[in-house]
Amino acid sequence: MSKMKYLCQKEAIAIDEELFNVYRFSVDQLMELAGLSSATAIAKCYPDKKRVLICVGPGNNGGDGLVAARHLKMFGFIPSIFYPKRTDKPLYTNLTNQCKMMGINFVEEFPSEQTIQKQADIVVDALFGFGFKPPVRPQFQPILESLSKTSIPLCSIDIPSGWDVEEGPNNEIPSLSPELVISLTAPKICMKKFNGKYHFLGGRFVPNALKEKYGLELPEYPGTECIVKLNN
Amino acid sequence: MSKMKYLCQKEAIAIDEELFNVYRFSVDQLMELAGLSSATAIAKCYPDKKRVLICVGPGNNGGDGLVAARHLKMFGFIPSIFYPKRTDKPLYTNLTNQCKMMGINFVEEFPSEQTIQKQADIVVDALFGFGFKPPVRPQFQPILESLSKTSIPLCSIDIPSGWDVEEGPNNEIPSLSPELVISLTAPKICMKKFNGKYHFLGGRFVPNALKEKYGLELPEYPGTECIVKLNN
Repeated sequence: MSKMKYLCQKEAIAIDEELFNVYRFSVDQLMELAGLSSATAIAKCYPDKKRVLICVGPGNNGGDGLVAARHLKMFGFIPSIFYPKRTDKPLYTNLTNQCKMMGINFVEEFPSEQTIQKQADIVVDALFGFGFKPPVRPQFQPILESLSKTSIPLCSIDIPSGWDVEEGPNNEIPSLSPELVISLTAPKICMKKFNGKYHFLGGRFVPNALKEKYGLELPEYPGTECIVKLNN
Repeated sequence: MSKMKYLCQKEAIAIDEELFNVYRFSVDQLMELAGLSSATAIAKCYPDKKRVLICVGPGNNGGDGLVAARHLKMFGFIPSIFYPKRTDKPLYTNLTNQCKMMGINFVEEFPSEQTIQKQADIVVDALFGFGFKPPVRPQFQPILESLSKTSIPLCSIDIPSGWDVEEGPNNEIPSLSPELVISLTAPKICMKKFNGKYHFLGGRFVPNALKEKYGLELPEYPGTECIVKLNN
C-alpha cells in the first residue's frame, strides 16, 4: 500500500482521456461502474442509515452521484437528490429520468444545514471531481458552506469538493471534512491530507497496461468486489 | 421463490423496451451491469478455473459476453473470445476494442470440441438471448454442436443458446446443457427445464414499478451483491 501512487490533476485527466479515446470506453459505462462503486462503499459503511441526500454537481462527478443514487435505491436506501445546475446533455437528462422514474425525490430548494440534518442520515457530495479548478461558482459557495458544517456523515465521491486536487483544502473555499471518500480509478494527491474514517478505492476498470504506463500501484480488489478499502 | 415469475418472450422484450424507452437507460449501461453480473457469477462458481473461452453472438447477448470477458480479466481470469459474426455498430466495435486493448485474445478459427477442451477450463455461451427465434443460422449450427458436446463446464448468459425462450430445448437444434445459467432481469419460462448445477439471477436494475407492472416476484439480492442464487 505504501507505494501507491497518488495522481496529480494532469495525470488524472490524462488517464481519463485515455480510457475514453484509446480504450474507447463510453462515459455511460465508466460512470455506471463509478457510481456503483460509490453506492457500494456507502452501503457498506452505513448499513443502518437509510435516508441519503445526494448533492449533484454539473459535471461527471455529478453524473457519478446520479448513478450512485439509483444503486442506493436498489440497495434499499431512500435517496433524495439536490441537483441545482443541470446539464442539458442526453446522458444527464437520461440519468435524471432514470432516478425520477424510480421514485427518487428531487429536492428543489437548497437544503440548509438544519434541513439536511432533519431530512437525511447521510449526505453525499457529488459536486466536483478531479477536474475542479477554483474558484467555486457563487451558486455553489453556500452549498459547500452548508456541507462543511453538517454534523451527519458526509461522503465525497472521488475528492472532497472544493479541495484543490493536489493541495487539499483551499483557504478561500469552505472546507469539507468527509467521513468517507471513494477515490475513483486512483487516489489524487490531496487525499494524503484526508483524515476521515473511511477511504475506499472504486472504479475497477483500469487496464493493466494503463496501470503500468502511469506507474499506478493499486491495491488488489478482493474477489469480485468493486471497491477496496485503503489504509489512510 | 415459488412465486417467482418466469417470463415469456413477449414479456422479456416488453420489459427490455420499457427500460430503454421509458426509463431511458442506455444499452451501454444495462449491458455493463448484465456483463458484470455474468462475470461475477462465473467467478464465484469457478474460483479455481482460469482459462475462459467466451463465444460471442451477433446481438445484445454477445455484447453481455464481451463485457463479461473484460470483467473476468479484471477478476484475474484469462479470457479469450470467439466472435465470428461481428456487428458494425459503435457500441460493439468499442466493446471489442476495450477487450483487445486489455490484451484479451480473439480466437479467429472456430474452436472444435477438442480445441475448447484443450485451451479452456470453462466455456461461456453468449450467443443468443431472449430475442432468439429458430432456426439457427447455418454459421452457428456447428458452434452449438460443439458446445453441446463439450465436457468442460458450460455457462450460458440469460438462456442456453438455441433453446426456445418458452419451450426449452428444440429438436432441430443441438441442445446445450449448461452447468451455470445467469438469468438476466428475470428468468425466462424455458428455465423451468434447466437442470444444471447453478442458476443465478443478475441485472439488478429492475425498478420496483416495473416489477409490479409485470408481476415479477424476484428474490431479494443480498446486500450490495449484483447476483442472487436461485433454487432451481
